[in-house]
Parts: sequence; structure tokens; C-alpha cells
Amino acid sequence: MRIAVIGLGLIGGSLLRALTAAGHEVTGFDADPATRDLARAAGCRVLDSTAAAVAGTEVTVLAVPLPVLPRIFEDLAGYDGVLTDVTSVKGPVQDLAEKYGVRRFVGGHPMAGTEASGFAAADPKLFGGCIWVLCLEPHGTGLDDWLTLARLYTALGTRVLPITAVEHDNAVASISHVPHLLAATLATKLLESPLNKALAAGSFRDGSRVAATRPELTAAMCGGNANEVIRELTHVIDDLVRLRERLELSDPVHAQLDYLRRASELRRAWPPVPGAAGRLTADVQALLALGRSGGWVTSVDGHEVATIRPETDRYSS
Amino acid sequence: MRIAVIGLGLIGGSLLRALTAAGHEVTGFDADPATRDLARAAGCRVLDSTAAAVAGTEVTVLAVPLPVLPRIFEDLAGYDGVLTDVTSVKGPVQDLAEKYGVRRFVGGHPMAGTEASGFAAADPKLFGGCIWVLCLEPHGTGLDDWLTLARLYTALGTRVLPITAVEHDNAVASISHVPHLLAATLATKLLESPLNKALAAGSFRDGSRVAATRPELTAAMCGGNANEVIRELTHVIDDLVRLRERLELSDPVHAQLDYLRRASELRRAWPPVPGAAGRLTADVQALLALGRSGGWVTSVDGHEVATIRPETDRYSS
Repeated sequence: MRIAVIGLGLIGGSLLRALTAAGHEVTGFDADPATRDLARAAGCRVLDSTAAAVAGTEVTVLAVPLPVLPRIFEDLAGYDGVLTDVTSVKGPVQDLAEKYGVRRFVGGHPMAGTEASGFAAADPKLFGGCIWVLCLEPHGTGLDDWLTLARLYTALGTRVLPITAVEHDNAVASISHVPHLLAATLATKLLESPLNKALAAGSFRDGSRVAATRPELTAAMCGGNANEVIRELTHVIDDLVRLRERLELSDPVHAQLDYLRRASELRRAWPPVPGAAGRLTADVQALLALGRSGGWVTSVDGHEVATIRPETDRYSS
Repeated sequence: MRIAVIGLGLIGGSLLRALTAAGHEVTGFDADPATRDLARAAGCRVLDSTAAAVAGTEVTVLAVPLPVLPRIFEDLAGYDGVLTDVTSVKGPVQDLAEKYGVRRFVGGHPMAGTEASGFAAADPKLFGGCIWVLCLEPHGTGLDDWLTLARLYTALGTRVLPITAVEHDNAVASISHVPHLLAATLATKLLESPLNKALAAGSFRDGSRVAATRPELTAAMCGGNANEVIRELTHVIDDLVRLRERLELSDPVHAQLDYLRRASELRRAWPPVPGAAGRLTADVQALLALGRSGGWVTSVDGHEVATIRPETDRYSS
């Protein structure tokens, strides 16, 4: 396929290299000339403008930060290929795509990354085995466009998970964005006394690890998904208020036990084990049902897709 | 020295082995006959009752869970050596020691451990480099008894940190006990949907890791320190409520940035780097000042102690 990748940081750079290695005809562009030179030195075909990079391609992947997307959507007004992105919030991007009248847009979010950033850290193997969310809107996404991207990404070894933008943003608020805020709150405990710094050990180390993330990234991620993060943060605050009430009872040890036991069992049963392989004929509702069950697509052949669903356990809803 | 260790689980068993290897005359006891056999098979001297194990010893270390301490304090009513413990809360143990009229009691808490438990996991090297809190009460702890234990533990390669029981319980509530409750709260997010399980990645994995701890241990730890945990949990809830308010502002991305920046800088500056070595003549206030600055004792020679203080940084108070 002829594919363009716009934005050659960690994710875009890795994708440019992975797609090139997979034999596609891939062109890239980055606004930073030094990054373009780096990518050329790595053997990639890099052009000097977005327009030049996307000319004649069937698919364009926008691997730029959310605030840059409006300008690129304007630049690509006449583009007639499939457009997708890789940002960590999907509802606001969907809204932007509608606002700018982008046709054939499919939101994407690879659940991959490292502490590093920039093309220098790009790795064509970054996506192996990762979940790649591809948004599927019952009244919006072209199923054939979705399948085109699913075929492309599964061929890189990713697990493509179909879900709506709203459901994606809701889930990542609770299992990624709020965890970043909890980590930040823990990290500020170091400020209270040098004694805290000296006594902090394993539970602090792991619980606060992602607080070291670049603050601009965390702010953009949580702020870009503010409504969902506010809702999830409210649930967490409510849970903590209830835990505090239990600690105020006459037997605080036993009062918490059921809650802690359930948490411990849930955590020990995670991550879920891949379960049965299956097949389905592509259809929006069937694909969404797969994603809602935590399952994913492993390959695409026309309208036939191969799937894996997670093992069910006693906690599955 | 002649030393007894009562309770031969992970901590007691590791200590029995470490003190034996260091050439002390050590006797052990555990209520479980199978554990006694295991410890004997490992070459330790294990007797068949607490009374037999402590007879003629100068120091006895109680490595039993908090609920067992009252019975042991009763059993040891006539003991005239130094008594210490290893439990993770210090105020309640101090209160128990006073209630049972225990003379020569010094509370202790080694900041060491693994996910494993039991004598089978005992490791004489478990304590190398760890912080070992030894409580020092201005009107209660015998300074010579404190120095006896500090000499014993520093000789095992630990960093002995002097602090009051109240200050210890306050600090561990914020950097250990509340982190366990936050991890549990995160883990329960898995219950909400199979999608959460599928999308959860690095920030969830680390943020919830200690939720997998045996729930009875977490409940005993947090419930045993309920007043301090309630206070710290209230601070965390207040922080999260303020973060939520920031997310409700018209520019949620920039509204959080200062908070996240401070958290990121604090976390990246942790753990503190060991700083200047020093010496001091043992004295309750001088030792407490050392502990409050996050410093520790590295060796003891009579009333002269060698110390290390952490490097100061821009966030040191």
C-alpha cells in the first residue's frame, strides 16, 4: 500500500519504520528538519511537506499532538484516502474531524510507548503484541476504511480492538489517566518531609512511577479528556471516602477486608489470559461486541476477520 | 551477643539467619512446628518455647504479627533484656508495651520485604542496605538499649533511622499505607468492564501492583494505623478534589500543569542521594534531628555514631 506518516516522533517514527520494513511504499514528513534528516539517515523516504508526503497515498497516519491536528485537517481538506491518528483521546479528535469535514476518518490509539520520545527512540518493533484501538462509530465510520486499517495494523503483529470513541475515552480515563493523577498526588507526599523521602519504598516507588512523565504530556492527556477524567476521579474520590468511613469503624482491620480481598483477587487475575480464537464476518455491531468483551482482531481477509476473546473469569461481567 | 528471635516468618527467619551468620549466639522459636523444623534444617538453633528461646539472652526480637504481641508481652513479663519488634506500625506497639509494663522496649521496623512470606523465603541478605527504623522516644526509650540495637542492626549492613513512633506512623501512612489503598482502588476498576482489563497498560500495572498483596496484611497494616491513615487519606482526597476543580476550568490542560510539574520534578529527584558522612555523640535530640532530616546511622562505637545525611535538593524543607 501507499501510506503517509505525518509526525515522526516515537510513535510516528516507529510506524514509518515498521511499515517500510513490511514492504509498503511509505512516505513521511515531520515539521522539524533535524527529525527529517534523522529519519532519512535511517533509510526512510521523507519529503519536505505534508502535501508532498500524502500525494497519491491510500492511507495517512497523523502522529502529531492533538493541538496540531486542526491545522493538518485544514491542510488535508482535499485528501481522498483514509485518515487516522494515534492520540490518546478519541472523542475530541472525532469532533475535530467532523468540524473540519474530514471524510474517511478512523480514530486510532496504539497502547504502546516508552518513557523515551523522538525519532531517535523509534523502534519498528514497538507495536509487536500491543493493543491498537481503532474507533468504530455505528453512524460514522466506513466499515471498509476500518478494515483497511485493521488489516494494515494486524499485519504488524498488533491486536486491533474495535470500540467507539466514547467507550475508549471512558475506559482510558479510569485505567490510564486517573492512575497518572494518583501517581502525581503520591509524588507530592515527598514534599512534606525528608523523612517521607527516606522511608518511601516499594509501594511508593511503583505507585508514583508515572508521575515522572513529562508534565505537559500528562496535562494534555487528562485535560484533553477532562469530562471523563472528572467522572472517574469522582468515583475514585467516592471509593476513598468510603474506605475512610470503614477505617473510622470500631474494627478498622476487618471493616476493610472485603474491599481489599476483592481488589487483591482482581489484580492477581490481571492481565487476562487470551482465550478462544474465532472468526466473524465484519459488521459494526459484531465488532463492537468483540471489543466490549475485551477481545481483538488478529487478522483481516476481505470482510472475514480472525478474533481472540479473553478467557472469562469469575469477575467477567 | 546472645539474641532470641521469636516468630520465624520472612522477617524473623531472615534475621535469625543473618544474626547466626554474623557470629552471634542466636536462638529462635516459632509457634508452628513445621517452621521450627525448616529453620533447624537450615542450621539454626531453634527451641520449643518462647521461654526456652529467650532464657539468658540480652536481646529478644519479636517478629510476630501485631495481634500476637499482647500474649508474648505477657509471656515475657519477667524478661530483663532489650525487647524489640518488627511490625509496620509503631504507636500501637508502644502503647501495648506500656500497657503490659514491658521494660527496655525499643520499637523497630525494617523497610524490607518481598511479595513472598514464610521461613522458606527467609534470606540472610534481605536487610542489606535497607532502612531500619528504630524508635526513640524522648521520655521512654533507654538510649543505651537503642544503641545496643543500632550497633547490632548496622553491623548487618542496614541504615538505622531514629525517629519517634508517632512520626514513623505519620510518614508510613502517607508513603506506604495510603499507596496500598490507592492501588486497591485502582484494581477495582477492572471490575467495571472487560474493556478496562484489555486496555490497562503500564500506568495501571505499576499503580495497582501492591493491590495483589495478601489482603489480611494490608488490612492489618492500615487498620492498625487507622488514625494516621484517615488523616493522610483526607489529604489525598482533598488533593484529588482540587485536581478535579482544575479540570473543570475553561483550560483544563494548563490548569493542572503546575501541580503535575512539581510532582514530576519531585519524583525524578527520588530516591535521595546519600550525602555527607558525619559523626555525632549519641543524644536523643541529636539522633532525632538526624532521622527527621532523612539521615541514618551507619555504625555505633560506644556513644559515638557514624551518620549519613541525604543530599539536600531544592525541595528539601
